[in-house]
Amino acid sequence: MWQLLSRLVNNKLLLTQLGKQCKRGLSSSTEKKLNVAVIGGGRIGQVHMETLSFHTPLAKPVMIVDFIEKVAKSTAEKFGVAKYSTDFKDVLKDPNIEAVWICSPSSQHSEQIKALAAAGKHIFCEKPLAITLKEAEEVIAAVEKAKVKMMLAFQRRFDPNFARAKQCVQSGAVGDVYAVHLISRDPAPPPIEYIQSSGGIHNDMAIHDFDIARFMTGSECEEIIAYGACRVDPKIASEGKDIDTAITLLKFKNGAFCTIDNCRQSPSGYDQRVEVFGSKGLVRFGNNFPNNVFIEDGQSIRRSDLPFNFFMDRYTDAYRNETKEFVKCILENKEPPTSGRDGTAAMAMAIAAKKSLLEKRPVKLSEITA
Amino acid sequence: MWQLLSRLVNNKLLLTQLGKQCKRGLSSSTEKKLNVAVIGGGRIGQVHMETLSFHTPLAKPVMIVDFIEKVAKSTAEKFGVAKYSTDFKDVLKDPNIEAVWICSPSSQHSEQIKALAAAGKHIFCEKPLAITLKEAEEVIAAVEKAKVKMMLAFQRRFDPNFARAKQCVQSGAVGDVYAVHLISRDPAPPPIEYIQSSGGIHNDMAIHDFDIARFMTGSECEEIIAYGACRVDPKIASEGKDIDTAITLLKFKNGAFCTIDNCRQSPSGYDQRVEVFGSKGLVRFGNNFPNNVFIEDGQSIRRSDLPFNFFMDRYTDAYRNETKEFVKCILENKEPPTSGRDGTAAMAMAIAAKKSLLEKRPVKLSEITA
Amino acid sequence: MWQLLSRLVNNKLLLTQLGKQCKRGLSSSTEKKLNVAVIGGGRIGQVHMETLSFHTPLAKPVMIVDFIEKVAKSTAEKFGVAKYSTDFKDVLKDPNIEAVWICSPSSQHSEQIKALAAAGKHIFCEKPLAITLKEAEEVIAAVEKAKVKMMLAFQRRFDPNFARAKQCVQSGAVGDVYAVHLISRDPAPPPIEYIQSSGGIHNDMAIHDFDIARFMTGSECEEIIAYGACRVDPKIASEGKDIDTAITLLKFKNGAFCTIDNCRQSPSGYDQRVEVFGSKGLVRFGNNFPNNVFIEDGQSIRRSDLPFNFFMDRYTDAYRNETKEFVKCILENKEPPTSGRDGTAAMAMAIAAKKSLLEKRPVKLSEITA
Amino acid sequence: MWQLLSRLVNNKLLLTQLGKQCKRGLSSSTEKKLNVAVIGGGRIGQVHMETLSFHTPLAKPVMIVDFIEKVAKSTAEKFGVAKYSTDFKDVLKDPNIEAVWICSPSSQHSEQIKALAAAGKHIFCEKPLAITLKEAEEVIAAVEKAKVKMMLAFQRRFDPNFARAKQCVQSGAVGDVYAVHLISRDPAPPPIEYIQSSGGIHNDMAIHDFDIARFMTGSECEEIIAYGACRVDPKIASEGKDIDTAITLLKFKNGAFCTIDNCRQSPSGYDQRVEVFGSKGLVRFGNNFPNNVFIEDGQSIRRSDLPFNFFMDRYTDAYRNETKEFVKCILENKEPPTSGRDGTAAMAMAIAAKKSLLEKRPVKLSEITA
Repeated sequence: MWQLLSRLVNNKLLLTQLGKQCKRGLSSSTEKKLNVAVIGGGRIGQVHMETLSFHTPLAKPVMIVDFIEKVAKSTAEKFGVAKYSTDFKDVLKDPNIEAVWICSPSSQHSEQIKALAAAGKHIFCEKPLAITLKEAEEVIAAVEKAKVKMMLAFQRRFDPNFARAKQCVQSGAVGDVYAVHLISRDPAPPPIEYIQSSGGIHNDMAIHDFDIARFMTGSECEEIIAYGACRVDPKIASEGKDIDTAITLLKFKNGAFCTIDNCRQSPSGYDQRVEVFGSKGLVRFGNNFPNNVFIEDGQSIRRSDLPFNFFMDRYTDAYRNETKEFVKCILENKEPPTSGRDGTAAMAMAIAAKKSLLEKRPVKLSEITA
Repeated sequence: MWQLLSRLVNNKLLLTQLGKQCKRGLSSSTEKKLNVAVIGGGRIGQVHMETLSFHTPLAKPVMIVDFIEKVAKSTAEKFGVAKYSTDFKDVLKDPNIEAVWICSPSSQHSEQIKALAAAGKHIFCEKPLAITLKEAEEVIAAVEKAKVKMMLAFQRRFDPNFARAKQCVQSGAVGDVYAVHLISRDPAPPPIEYIQSSGGIHNDMAIHDFDIARFMTGSECEEIIAYGACRVDPKIASEGKDIDTAITLLKFKNGAFCTIDNCRQSPSGYDQRVEVFGSKGLVRFGNNFPNNVFIEDGQSIRRSDLPFNFFMDRYTDAYRNETKEFVKCILENKEPPTSGRDGTAAMAMAIAAKKSLLEKRPVKLSEITA
Repeated sequence: MWQLLSRLVNNKLLLTQLGKQCKRGLSSSTEKKLNVAVIGGGRIGQVHMETLSFHTPLAKPVMIVDFIEKVAKSTAEKFGVAKYSTDFKDVLKDPNIEAVWICSPSSQHSEQIKALAAAGKHIFCEKPLAITLKEAEEVIAAVEKAKVKMMLAFQRRFDPNFARAKQCVQSGAVGDVYAVHLISRDPAPPPIEYIQSSGGIHNDMAIHDFDIARFMTGSECEEIIAYGACRVDPKIASEGKDIDTAITLLKFKNGAFCTIDNCRQSPSGYDQRVEVFGSKGLVRFGNNFPNNVFIEDGQSIRRSDLPFNFFMDRYTDAYRNETKEFVKCILENKEPPTSGRDGTAAMAMAIAAKKSLLEKRPVKLSEITA
Repeated sequence: MWQLLSRLVNNKLLLTQLGKQCKRGLSSSTEKKLNVAVIGGGRIGQVHMETLSFHTPLAKPVMIVDFIEKVAKSTAEKFGVAKYSTDFKDVLKDPNIEAVWICSPSSQHSEQIKALAAAGKHIFCEKPLAITLKEAEEVIAAVEKAKVKMMLAFQRRFDPNFARAKQCVQSGAVGDVYAVHLISRDPAPPPIEYIQSSGGIHNDMAIHDFDIARFMTGSECEEIIAYGACRVDPKIASEGKDIDTAITLLKFKNGAFCTIDNCRQSPSGYDQRVEVFGSKGLVRFGNNFPNNVFIEDGQSIRRSDLPFNFFMDRYTDAYRNETKEFVKCILENKEPPTSGRDGTAAMAMAIAAKKSLLEKRPVKLSEITA
């Protein structure tokens, strides 16, 4: 392969390439790095920690917090982080820390954001901002007052498929958006205990699609009608007090309509598909697969494997991209691409959808207040 | 998303998952790690260094060697490696180093392998083993005598597409292999200087396909007939003394035939496709793309983007997988999946192909001797 | 090609094959044929005439009726039909005619069906049965009283894609149907004059999808909510008093939901796609294309052509299959697969959808009466 | 559907459309029609008879010949043809017959062509022209001397996929052709008796691909090397004296290479695929399927059905198009798109391939003489 040897013939090119490949240290060691902390050493905390450690040359994790000491300590060791703690307040006290990734349980988000903002830290926060819309508004106000940057983790926007589709819409290739169709189904339902504390399918699953509907239409939602039923497992209704199959129809201020199909169970695996249709064309994408091998065995012509079955596998790049993007926004003093307002908009849509389902009528977003 | 919160309801699951996700340190710090060195800080050296540092919990890079001191030093800093050197002999002297990744220029491979084997180091070596078949045989003998493990880097075998296709063949879904068809084209030709020192298209490009033909058929090549021409750029013939378009037909001992289409230029980008056809079925795969978005704009229905254009992007997973695999082989004392013999087999095929092209006749592999 | 010569070696096989291929006369000339008439020599009348003449060995067209004498006469000549007329009553008077294909303007359907039924003729009728639901009920009653067979031309059910998808649903591969998603868009809007007399988009376009929703779910519609807007051309609203973009959400008695996306304009051409999702799997299909050639030209990877742009091209097989099927039903004395009840069910859905759009609320089908 | 009613609002358009749809009689009955005969009432004869009868308004079959009287008679009845005969010489005697479709056994072609040409009839001939190259040359000479038109039935050229791919090549989208790859496999081997009289796989199967290679490259073949083996059924070698798996590599005068993969057995069904690769891009197509339904059943994502399994189903349009084309060429006095020379070129390639296989060396086309 000629590229392997290109070093010998084209040293200059090599150095440029090396520069691009370098994830971390070839940036001169005297270059300013952003000192960051991560709160929460759970699954998603590990993901952000890895990105910050290995794939973000200009970031340097300096503290990891987890309420289980063993997790905090082992994570610190794993990523070579100097400090760990079981109390997020240690982050507040450390003047060295410039930005914080909040990966703690949802119920702690609003308190942590307010405290971190007051301490002048930039904040990357996993969804949701807060449990109630009112709290979320308070959080946004606190952040605005503190003049720190905050980015809310709607990771799908940073996935190569979603981002490329959005780019097509923005380029004008689709024209005026007439309709958006979203399929978003989980492989299998979670435990009933989880459903009981999830806030319902609109709050827990559809909220990602509500955000993507806003992202793709480039508009605000005006009205929602939600249908749904318990089809997958009767316990989801009887014990979980929830539906498991939700069809939601949205009308946006720019005239676009959107349908969303959510289901807690999908035999084909984690099913994530998008279509945006408009006056000039359409853009669409299907699922991602672990490989693109097809088998023809005399009986059928089929893909060798089902799509990635787990959101962590499906959205690996998206999680990485969003963290890198926020680091860039801080260092280049740019507005983060997703804001607290994106969070409250999606929350309000989830509330409207639930209300529509219960009251069996179209609900206007103007009816929803904090 | 329920999985984010699953920690609260299912702590045991979480820990299992964490275990899987962990790339490095959550393995107890007292666990034995394999101490490794990397020779060569060029592009591919950086790739292996990243895998060994961040994605292989049980490996620990302890030295990096590059003949340019600046490169050696900055790479050591980047990956937090304790030692760096400009002389590979420092690796020999360090009793702490158990395994070495050779990413140096091809001309140095045979000398380095022999010295490392003699020093009792396990060896992962980028292609080729040596410049001549004779030298390669000596290298293999030296390694066998020293009883160290050696793995030759045919990375494509570790790519998810190639590996899955092979698995289908092995599963019996394809039956007896009748024909293999390989397309393997580069986006654009390298500089003439590179071609002049490349050993020709069979040695430089087709050698990967020769290996894959052996891999997919599970057999040894018996006879080759090579056709080719200079179609892309007349300088490749006049100054490079090479062809740029090669069609090669191979016959294997188990009766399988194979066609290979190599070209130094592909308007569609880096084009890597495989079909294996047999008595019971076929398995095939096409290219990998940066996303799976399709645009319909009233004029056409098309993919939003061409395939990955660069082998480093196309084979990212493959490079990572091969290095992880060798670490595993050493630690579990297993035979490496690719050996020096795989290297000499592919070299002999390249020699036979060149001979066929020059002599305009089918050449038997039995005619090729070290 | 061995099959061409197979006659020589396998004469018996040939005769069997010939028998299958034969569309008409190899059936012994003494075999009973069904004498049929076609009313209406417009586009769809021509299609049915061709099928009846050339592709239905056991049918024999004996009269063609069109109110334009020139059309009636030339059609009779074209297909070698003995009689033509400008008055459908001539069909009633001819005791030789056993079955009639009604392809006249919609406003004449109910009168013609009633008269034909009273005269003891079997009836194949293009949509709709009648202009109002009340009239349609009368028509059905008349047909039932006369004990003749009637089939309503929902041709999509006989298209290879729709029919195969239905078969998958019926086979149990999909399990319980949770959701059906239908895309059904026309390439470009019709003239305003047409829209003015069309009865609106639900009656004119969506009615096919309402039928397919019933077909795919295997259930009756319980409730509809219709959204829509005039997005394509303001004249469709101002002069046509209609919408051009309609998103409709349906709930079926078996719990299935259905979304329908209709638009009078589709830059990608005639866009007809279906997905049926259920407890065990899903079945889906996209558009039909004039060929399956892909071009990669260095800029893009694209289909060589857009889908069939015209319903007559897209549904060629469907039109042929439905007519053959009705001939078979008569000759074998079987129940036709689509009935007058299918027609009134779809009409009621269109009325409910229009009502929902006007009253901006979900409408139950139980609210719709003849 | 607005188009159905368009007659009411747009009568002029309707008449134009009708004109297009009309296959036969709406052409004024005084218009000159081409009187044709068909020799051979086997499978392919039936196909051409149907096209000539029902889909070619300006042709009129006036005689059908088959050596089995029952077949001749029933075919005449089926298509309403005035005369039938068991002796092709009756065609010669009938001054009314202007053109003849030869669908008789291959061994009779040369004699019939020469007689028909001498009688001044235009000739459409199924492959091959003759059994030997020498005879074929004589046939061509006879046709040229008689100044009648002759078209040889290479139907694939008239298939929508092949024709569209060729058009892409001709449009310049592919640039200079570097390589053509053809896959052409039969579902299952024919009876041994058939193979014994087939002239071998190159003459019987590959000959279509040899023609397509010339068609796609737009050049003449210079050299061939043929490999092959008996892999599918040992009787094909022992009793049939043939191979069943053939890989052939061709070099064309314009520098293009071509690989052809033929096999008598394909578990995926009738497998017909093409790729043309060049300096500016590539064009490719895969198989045709009876529908485009995909099923996802929790275990796999697959097409609902295998490709069309039989050449008569796969090439339905092609057979129809070629016959229409020849009628047009006669009536408009144009050169037929495929000539006797196309036939002899493909025959010579088959002879060269067989010679290469036997002599185990590349064979130049210049070695092959009549």
